[in-house]
Order: sequence, then structure tokens, then C-alpha cells
Amino acid sequence: MSKTGCFYCDKDEQLTNLMIEISKLPSSILYLNRDQTHKGRCIIAFHSHKRELFELSEVELTAFMKDVSIAAEAIQRAFKADKINYAIYGDLVSHLHFHLVPKYEGGPEWGEAFVNSPISRLLMKDSDNRERIEGILEQLKIVRGI
Amino acid sequence: MSKTGCFYCDKDEQLTNLMIEISKLPSSILYLNRDQTHKGRCIIAFHSHKRELFELSEVELTAFMKDVSIAAEAIQRAFKADKINYAIYGDLVSHLHFHLVPKYEGGPEWGEAFVNSPISRLLMKDSDNRERIEGILEQLKIVRGI
Repeated sequence: MSKTGCFYCDKDEQLTNLMIEISKLPSSILYLNRDQTHKGRCIIAFHSHKRELFELSEVELTAFMKDVSIAAEAIQRAFKADKINYAIYGDLVSHLHFHLVPKYEGGPEWGEAFVNSPISRLLMKDSDNRERIEGILEQLKIVRGI
Repeated sequence: MSKTGCFYCDKDEQLTNLMIEISKLPSSILYLNRDQTHKGRCIIAFHSHKRELFELSEVELTAFMKDVSIAAEAIQRAFKADKINYAIYGDLVSHLHFHLVPKYEGGPEWGEAFVNSPISRLLMKDSDNRERIEGILEQLKIVRGI
């Protein structure tokens, strides 16, 4: 049963059915989206429960966007994406999070907004998820210089 | 004829057919989207030609996201939106810009990703656009404390 009513805060089964933790970052957690229609699609969630970017202090906003930028670069490098799409929707699941969606020329929804369906369209085996996570972790280290 | 091949840089008719300038901000320009399916929908474009958030320096990223945050708050306040959606796509028009899309409970695409059609779905009279721009400018002043 949900403790807070927010699965990003509870980190319960509702969350793990949708995504797999890749790494904690200074002000966020980066997850691999189980729907891998777009190779390397991730979600990055702010570490505490806020709804809008303008609810963050300047220090929080700077730190969060640094995490978002680093994660996007790592994803781009890991999969040689042609463009990263970044989106905060959250009308219903309002805990502040960006969808980070790598796009590929000739691939799904190139040149259009990516589909944001609650139903996974392309699920993968655990070993394949693991491989993608390892690829992102490797690039995260390089981008962060650690 | 396009000078740079980017209408955000050229600020030509291709741009003015899609949007109307509201205000220059320290590192960006805020525009009212002519498609007002979502009351108060705007676009905020970085002042120079970059493609990805991670191409910005830390100083540029901080400044741009401060503009984005301020603009989103002004839009939310002007129209009492229930949630702001923020999205960078740009597979084809890659000059860094966020769609800032106010969402309303019971309104278009509440609880879903907003439709990002290149075809305007709800165009308004100039006087109505002007009224929305004035509403945003008024709130921008308050949010920026000027």
C-alpha cells in the first residue's frame, strides 16, 4: 500500500514496474524506462517531492539541471542518439521528473513528439536492460569526470 | 529566404507565423505560441544556436533554466494553470527551445502529453493574443521583482 501516495517517493512496486534505478545523482535519481521503444529511454526524478521547476530554489534548480544535462549527455554518448528529447508532464504523477528520450533518424517518432504511453510498448529481457544500464553508467563516469 | 537555415536565428516570417514575441529575457526570448489550444501556451528559445542542454556551459545552463522557471511561473499565475508541461523536442528544428504548455483539469489533453502539431489548432484574433501577452508580461514583472 502506498505510503505517501507518490510512487517516486515510496519507490514501491508501482515504480519498479515502470523503471529500474541506474544511479543516484547529487539531486536526483536516474532510471532506465522499462519501455525501450527508444533505445536508452530514461527518467530522471528530483530527489524530493516538488511539482514545478519554479518551486525549486535557485541552488536546487541549478543542481537538478546539472544532473539532467549530465544524464542526457551520457545517454547520447552511450547509444549515439541523434537528438535527446526532454519532457516534464506530470499532470497526474506530479513529482518533478524529466523523460529523457533518445531519438534516432529513421527511428520511432523521429521529427515528432515521442509517444508517452503508460503502457510499455517494448519490454526487454533483464540481461538486455542490464547491458543498457552498464552502457549509461560507463558514460556517466566519463561525463562526470570520475 | 532563410539566412542561417534556422528560423529562431533568422527571426523571419516562418517564426512570426508560429509565434509572437512577448519579451527578451537574460538568456532567451519568450514567445506566445499562436496555437492557443492550451490557454497561455508559449515557447522559450535560448538566445544562441545550441541543440542540446549539455552543449551549454554551467553558467549558460543556470541562466537559461532561470528564465524557463520564471516564464513558467508567470504563465501559471497569469492563467491559473493546474500544471505546466515543459518539453524540448527539436529533432528537426533543433535550436534549443522549450514548449511551455499550461494544462487545465478537464481541459485538452489533461493527464496526457500535449499534442505537438505543426498545424495550429486554435488561432486567435490579434486583440486576444495581445491580451494574453499583457497578462504574461504583468506576471513576469511580479515574478522577476521588477
